[in-house]
Amino acid sequence: MTKPGQIIGRSPSRVDARQKVTGDTRFLPDLDHADVLHAAPVYARVSHARLKGIDPTSVNTDPDFVGLFTAKDIPGDNQVGVIIEDQPLLVTDRIRYLGDTVGILVARSDEAAQRLADEILIEFEELTPVYSIDSSRAATTEFIHSNNIACEHFVDRGDIQAGFKAADHIIEVELSTPVQEHYYLEPQCCIVSPDGLGGVSVMGSLQCPYYVQKAVARNLNLAYSQVRVEQAPTGGAFGGKEDIPSELCAMAALAVFHLQQPVRMVYSRRDDMQLTSKRHPFQMKYRVGVSEEGTLLAADIRLEENAGAYATLSTVVSYRSTMQAMGPYVLPNVKVHSTSYYTNLPPNGAFRGFGSPQAAFGHERIMDHIAAALKMDPIELRLKNMLKVGSQTLTGQLLESSVGATETLTRARDASGWSGPAINGSDGRYRTGMGVASIHYGNCLGAAGWALDGSGAKLQLYRDGSVAVSFGLVEMGQGALTVVAQMAAEALGIRIEDIHVLPTDTHQVPDSGPSVASRNVMMTGNAIRDAARQLRAGIIDAAARLMNCEAESVELSQGIAHDKGSGKQTSLKEIADFLFLNNLNMESLGWWHVPELTYDAKKGVGEAYFTYSYATHIAAVQVDTITGRVRVQKIWAAHDVGRAINPAGLEAQVEGGTVQGIGWAVTEDLQYSGGEVMNDNLSTYLLPTAADVGEIETIIVEDPEPLGPWGAKGIGEPAIIPTAAAIANAVSNAIKRPVDHIPMHPEMILELLDNTEGGV
Amino acid sequence: MTKPGQIIGRSPSRVDARQKVTGDTRFLPDLDHADVLHAAPVYARVSHARLKGIDPTSVNTDPDFVGLFTAKDIPGDNQVGVIIEDQPLLVTDRIRYLGDTVGILVARSDEAAQRLADEILIEFEELTPVYSIDSSRAATTEFIHSNNIACEHFVDRGDIQAGFKAADHIIEVELSTPVQEHYYLEPQCCIVSPDGLGGVSVMGSLQCPYYVQKAVARNLNLAYSQVRVEQAPTGGAFGGKEDIPSELCAMAALAVFHLQQPVRMVYSRRDDMQLTSKRHPFQMKYRVGVSEEGTLLAADIRLEENAGAYATLSTVVSYRSTMQAMGPYVLPNVKVHSTSYYTNLPPNGAFRGFGSPQAAFGHERIMDHIAAALKMDPIELRLKNMLKVGSQTLTGQLLESSVGATETLTRARDASGWSGPAINGSDGRYRTGMGVASIHYGNCLGAAGWALDGSGAKLQLYRDGSVAVSFGLVEMGQGALTVVAQMAAEALGIRIEDIHVLPTDTHQVPDSGPSVASRNVMMTGNAIRDAARQLRAGIIDAAARLMNCEAESVELSQGIAHDKGSGKQTSLKEIADFLFLNNLNMESLGWWHVPELTYDAKKGVGEAYFTYSYATHIAAVQVDTITGRVRVQKIWAAHDVGRAINPAGLEAQVEGGTVQGIGWAVTEDLQYSGGEVMNDNLSTYLLPTAADVGEIETIIVEDPEPLGPWGAKGIGEPAIIPTAAAIANAVSNAIKRPVDHIPMHPEMILELLDNTEGGV
Repeated sequence: MTKPGQIIGRSPSRVDARQKVTGDTRFLPDLDHADVLHAAPVYARVSHARLKGIDPTSVNTDPDFVGLFTAKDIPGDNQVGVIIEDQPLLVTDRIRYLGDTVGILVARSDEAAQRLADEILIEFEELTPVYSIDSSRAATTEFIHSNNIACEHFVDRGDIQAGFKAADHIIEVELSTPVQEHYYLEPQCCIVSPDGLGGVSVMGSLQCPYYVQKAVARNLNLAYSQVRVEQAPTGGAFGGKEDIPSELCAMAALAVFHLQQPVRMVYSRRDDMQLTSKRHPFQMKYRVGVSEEGTLLAADIRLEENAGAYATLSTVVSYRSTMQAMGPYVLPNVKVHSTSYYTNLPPNGAFRGFGSPQAAFGHERIMDHIAAALKMDPIELRLKNMLKVGSQTLTGQLLESSVGATETLTRARDASGWSGPAINGSDGRYRTGMGVASIHYGNCLGAAGWALDGSGAKLQLYRDGSVAVSFGLVEMGQGALTVVAQMAAEALGIRIEDIHVLPTDTHQVPDSGPSVASRNVMMTGNAIRDAARQLRAGIIDAAARLMNCEAESVELSQGIAHDKGSGKQTSLKEIADFLFLNNLNMESLGWWHVPELTYDAKKGVGEAYFTYSYATHIAAVQVDTITGRVRVQKIWAAHDVGRAINPAGLEAQVEGGTVQGIGWAVTEDLQYSGGEVMNDNLSTYLLPTAADVGEIETIIVEDPEPLGPWGAKGIGEPAIIPTAAAIANAVSNAIKRPVDHIPMHPEMILELLDNTEGGV
Repeated sequence: MTKPGQIIGRSPSRVDARQKVTGDTRFLPDLDHADVLHAAPVYARVSHARLKGIDPTSVNTDPDFVGLFTAKDIPGDNQVGVIIEDQPLLVTDRIRYLGDTVGILVARSDEAAQRLADEILIEFEELTPVYSIDSSRAATTEFIHSNNIACEHFVDRGDIQAGFKAADHIIEVELSTPVQEHYYLEPQCCIVSPDGLGGVSVMGSLQCPYYVQKAVARNLNLAYSQVRVEQAPTGGAFGGKEDIPSELCAMAALAVFHLQQPVRMVYSRRDDMQLTSKRHPFQMKYRVGVSEEGTLLAADIRLEENAGAYATLSTVVSYRSTMQAMGPYVLPNVKVHSTSYYTNLPPNGAFRGFGSPQAAFGHERIMDHIAAALKMDPIELRLKNMLKVGSQTLTGQLLESSVGATETLTRARDASGWSGPAINGSDGRYRTGMGVASIHYGNCLGAAGWALDGSGAKLQLYRDGSVAVSFGLVEMGQGALTVVAQMAAEALGIRIEDIHVLPTDTHQVPDSGPSVASRNVMMTGNAIRDAARQLRAGIIDAAARLMNCEAESVELSQGIAHDKGSGKQTSLKEIADFLFLNNLNMESLGWWHVPELTYDAKKGVGEAYFTYSYATHIAAVQVDTITGRVRVQKIWAAHDVGRAINPAGLEAQVEGGTVQGIGWAVTEDLQYSGGEVMNDNLSTYLLPTAADVGEIETIIVEDPEPLGPWGAKGIGEPAIIPTAAAIANAVSNAIKRPVDHIPMHPEMILELLDNTEGGV
């Protein structure tokens, strides 16, 4: 492990902790503005239909009614598709899912807006809905869009025929993973106001202010510069506030455009669950050839995803799962084919891991199937094939540094007391087992999103020696404000107490891309280093002038400048005052973008991402063979993060991700009926509670990434990726039946125990 | 006149015109936030006293009462002095004027806050108040501060004894000018909110966001970077929102600090007039020696100002009037002594012209007295002595360029049909006359404020080719947004429609100093040119890559880049998209500060300002000898502005300034009784109406300033400076009595007609 610096590698208090604990943080739904109008979506409530009309006569005489706006009121392009332009802001003719929005109702109170929106009569002509991947694939008429395929991705490398021919064993498995609801505690919400100059000012709970800016500008036919998007304190996101806020904010902005008054829109929990994007369910077929000694020789992988009604982020979710389809292992011959299918369900989009947990479930279950077939220790099999410096990834990318995969596996193994293949136990009713899962995770957006993969930062030094930092990504609960403050303090050589990080605002720094893909430390950290290099030069020069010495002899640390020659010192406050009084520069802009990537999208070969994070989770579980209940007793979570900027924050990320993985694998189980979410609240949609989680031990592995700030790589998404697979492997080990489908709800476990032969 | 460019020198519509005309602009008092608390000042209502206590028992059981905060609740320094630290935010012991604030009362409604604040009982022990300059100067005990002098300034250049000795005539006059209320239509107001991270966010109707930031930080003991000040649309300022918003915002912020809830404070018109700063009344003695031919040889000038209870901006108001005390004339031997006296009136501060209209009244009246004594045409006398390139100013500063003084005078003369000394007429009851006044005006802050005389701008190019401009000065009704947009468009070579100027925000650009001293075009224009130079370089490079040519062969104009070689062209939208997709720079920061000035503050000799604007007003008046009413029939207003960025906006500035000058000279007449303003509303404080104004003809003189953006110099303040003097000269000419005191209300005119011998 690298040595902690004065600021990097330490864990100062979260800068937003006090206000969040005391309740002083004011989230948008907490604000009560008397002069603001309230909006609610009017949505289809039918899964697949032709829209015939919207009849407002039932509501437009209500004293609280202000207005109803539909597609014909949109002055610009009626379009909110993030990547593929397949999604109107408001339905014009085709209703594609139950939550498809046909209008926005504005009323004088939130209660009235919801009530009146519910009362609007929508006329339609029903079409046959399809909900599953299989029925979407099978459809021959009434396609949801021009056809039912949202996108496809391929990897075709080496010679899989030859690989399979050389293999001693060929293992095949079919697997599936379920939909998952983000269940951020704060629902989707925004307040949009006219800016007094023909533009609009948007305040929202969101991850991607620049996406919102684009959507609002496009739908209202405004210039980007006329749309200011500021992020409000955001009560959780997890990817669910990547695409949806563009819809919400563009709808509220449409009402503002017509009414020239501020409009607030807060989704009810019910609407939030019915309307908004979720994790893609996957169906997977893995066929892998392996030598007797356990060397992977060939893989043929088929991934199929349920995209829901619109593509939103399916193309890039699918890209990521395709690139990572066989995990952190060397594999010379490989074919991956991934297809996302449109269905009449809510569109699926971004969710922490972004297709990776699904692929990890595939590759880590097949690894355990292989180990069982070879009667090898699953860890031994993994170690034999694991990526290291000098290896090539699935796409043939040569890894030159920062490959901590093996260390995550050996350290998790050692910590867990893993004792070889026979790790399952039984006392009759209760069976215990352990399971392992290793993953790699391409940092940032990769070749598919290179153009968006630059980020900015702005540093502004004040006369009193304090510094305001602006950045283009967001704090959404993950602790960004704190690590940004740490990185700025370290890069400048000043105290963290003197740094104040501003809420994100599109008008502060240039389009910095989306706050996704665990990008913040990497992107903002490097942008801050760029900005700090410039600002620090002026600080050092001023210090040299104040101390009458050469700039080269000045050391700046913790806000004190020392002249190494004379031993004199001067404070940042004095330096800042000097800069101010002499009209010298006190501000700088920083920018960083990921290196260019050579990637052939047609063959899926080349540099998919510029670097990777690695992780191994080992799960210990107990299964109650009478109730079928799975209890996760402990997870050892080892993560190669390059460098831990803030170890306590990193542990919190790992714990949060792991818990969310436990929820997806075990407790959560979203149920649709006719395209409607049946369990649209916390009493029926079971997020894991403290009682469901067991112990989590975070193991930090630091194999520094040369391009990372202070060596760091991303952690937000890797935290969740291996969890479900590790638990499934552990449960398979415990009950001696293969768990190839999740969630592992009691009925499923009991069915496996009743109907399946013993096995992995 | 220089040629208009494509954008500079033209008059596009004001960018904020539509919303201001339709009423869509939302000023702070228009906003009604249900979750915001309301504050009102609790003030002394006695002019001079020792504070003994504040008794809240009469109000603190009221159901609408939330809190009362006094000096002991201030966590930082209880101090809001702008330059001299003589002014507590809230009184601790000494009450120095009737509006001195002892506490801030917070209630659940605005009405309740005002009502309860009025009911609070304040205990005090009265002291003898002084209200006039004479009584302040005469006081020997009970000084208002450690003594009664707020500040002094001197000029001592040449040998005035020798000058007077050589003079053929020595003319002496005593003059006085009155207080003036700003009467901005929107009263002082702010909303302060907690920022959720321990800092505060301030939104206010204000001119000087960085002053407010400093005051709030200081009183709350916060870092500057924790205090974000955003300017709300501001309904007039005229200098009255330079110092006072610091008090208002710091008071509201104090309540926010304790309550952690947003607090709104809107002064009632009564409170606004009783509490806030106004134009300094001056008493002046001019003694000038002149040769028989009319050459000025020596002047001994005594200026005395009524500073009111606190110094606020007296030191710099007084500096400016001292520097400009003898107007735009060559004068080899001069002594100026200026003293500001504390009195128990509201503090006087900044008001358009900033001491210049008062000094202009002095130097232009004495010029007419001299002309009368020499029996010369007042214009001939002025032309003989006028500053030109190669002249030295009062302080001995050599003028090297952009001295349009003579041209303003000759063009106003020619336009007005001025016909020599005997320009007065009479038809019995009505007498007519003409008067002339010429002035110079030091641009920006001058030597006394050099450290604050730098300003920033930020340009952000969006992918759609639109540009957001941030600047550190403000739009307060003068049209800043429009000229900033024009300058940014011209500097970048793009269309004005693609520019959107953002409201001012302390966290956007570094401390850019105050929005005063007609600085905006000069400072922001040059900062924009600096920023545009950087951003434009990237735009040109990208255009060259898109058109496959050398950067040198690219011309960019109105948002279209041409390759001079091939004739190819590409649009800014395409270029911006290319920059975005290639992760290239799309933002730049600009900064400009005035050149260093060599100035000896002790002797008042040297470079007082780096350049000067010049103007001449000629007034034609009619005096009713029965009612005493003065009617201004027409004013010819010739202004050397270097270069008119926006001629229509410039004319509006000249007209507004001239009307405000007419108000000060003729209709307005603020009356105090025992330190209380007696006419604290529009029915008794008579702003000039359309019927009082007559015709105004603006004559634009363009003698380009090499350091000005496109040659421009400031206009906001020069517009008002010569008006009152020109009218007084015209009335003197009409009634053949010297008008050496204003305002020229009917009683005063009748008294002059009754009691004075005929004369100038």
